[in-house]
Amino acid sequence: MSLMVDPFLLLILSSPSGAGKTTLTRKLQDRFPAVRFSVSHTTRKPRPNEVDGKDYHFVTRDQFDELVGRDAFVEWAEVHGNCYGTSRAEIERARSEPGVAGMIFDIDYQGARQIRAKIPDVVSVFILPPSMIELERRLRGRGSESEEILQRRFQAAIDEIEHYGFFDYLVVNDDVETAFKHLEGVVLAERSRRTRRAELAERLLRAGKL
Amino acid sequence: MSLMVDPFLLLILSSPSGAGKTTLTRKLQDRFPAVRFSVSHTTRKPRPNEVDGKDYHFVTRDQFDELVGRDAFVEWAEVHGNCYGTSRAEIERARSEPGVAGMIFDIDYQGARQIRAKIPDVVSVFILPPSMIELERRLRGRGSESEEILQRRFQAAIDEIEHYGFFDYLVVNDDVETAFKHLEGVVLAERSRRTRRAELAERLLRAGKL
Repeated sequence: MSLMVDPFLLLILSSPSGAGKTTLTRKLQDRFPAVRFSVSHTTRKPRPNEVDGKDYHFVTRDQFDELVGRDAFVEWAEVHGNCYGTSRAEIERARSEPGVAGMIFDIDYQGARQIRAKIPDVVSVFILPPSMIELERRLRGRGSESEEILQRRFQAAIDEIEHYGFFDYLVVNDDVETAFKHLEGVVLAERSRRTRRAELAERLLRAGKL
Repeated sequence: MSLMVDPFLLLILSSPSGAGKTTLTRKLQDRFPAVRFSVSHTTRKPRPNEVDGKDYHFVTRDQFDELVGRDAFVEWAEVHGNCYGTSRAEIERARSEPGVAGMIFDIDYQGARQIRAKIPDVVSVFILPPSMIELERRLRGRGSESEEILQRRFQAAIDEIEHYGFFDYLVVNDDVETAFKHLEGVVLAERSRRTRRAELAERLLRAGKL
C-alpha cells in the first residue's frame, strides 16, 4: 500500500481578481482534503471573525521584520502599508505531518515569482478569465464601486495577466466545472511526475532482483 | 469560443506487458475521442482481420527501407525480423486535420526515446504494475505459456522498467479507475501547460489594450 502514498505537492494558485479563483480553490480543497492551505503571516490587524493561526498568523511589524531578517519567508510583500508573507516553517510543518499531501498557496505573481526562485519544484497555476469583457462584467458585478476603482482593478488584472510567464499552467475559467477538471488534472499529473514517483520504479526494480 | 480549442498533444503511452496498458488506452480513447491513435508502418504480414491503414500501414521491406532512408520515421525498430515505425507524415496529417486534438503512440521505451529526441514537446507516460508479484500474476494469468517464456517476459518487463527515465510521468496501475484518473489528469494538465496556452493570455492582453 505504501506504493500509493501521494507525494507531497506545493501548489501556487493565482489569478487576477474576477477570474473566479475563490470558487475553484474551495472545490480543490473538497477534492483533496489532504492538501493543506497555507496560512500567511501578516501585520494587518485581525478583522472580526478572523482567527489567529487559521486565517492568518497575526504578528507585529517588529516580529515580521525579525522573520524577514532571518530569511524565514519564501515570499513576502508590503501591500498598502501591511506586510504579508509565507513562512518556510509553515511548509516544513505540513511536509512532516503524516497524512498531509501538500500545500496550496493563494498568492499573486510576485509571490509566485519569489517562491519559484526558492523552491524550484513548486507547481504554479494561473487562472485566466475567458475574456476581458467577461472579466469586466465580473468586476462590475461585485457591487457599486466607483468607475475609478473599477478601472484601477481592471488595470491591476491586466498587470497580473502580463506576468503569466511565471506560471507552469494556465487554466481558463469559462465554465467552472471544466476549469476545475483541469485544475484537478494538474494535481493528479504532478503527483505522477517521474521526478516525484521515481522511488516507485526503483522499488519494483529491487523486487525484480529478488 | 475559439479560446477553448484544445491544443494539439502528442502522447506516448508505454508499459511493460502485464501492466494493463490496453484497458487504459481504450478508456483514454473513449474519454478523448478527438485524440487520434497513431497507426504504425510495418513489414509484418497482415493477420486475418487486420485492415491496412487502420491496424497498420503494411509495406514491403523495400518500401520501409526507402522511408528510413528519407528520415520519414520519428522512431522505428526491427523486432524478430519485422520492422515497425511511426512516420512523421502520420503526425502531420493529424495535426492539420480540423477537430483532431492530438495523437497517442503505443510504443516501448526505445520508441519513446527516439520520438523524444526528435519531438521535444511530446508527453510520455509509463504505466507501472503495482508490484512485481502482481506483474508475474498477470503474466501467468494470460494462459498456458511455458515457464521459460514466462521468465523471458518477466525479464523483458524488468528491462522496460529499468528505462523509466525516458518518461515524463509514471502512473501505477493498481486500481484501473485510479490509474485512469491520473492518465486523464496528464492529458488535461498538459493541455493547460503555459507553453501550449500562452496564446490565450496574449489574446486577453491584446483585448485589454482596446
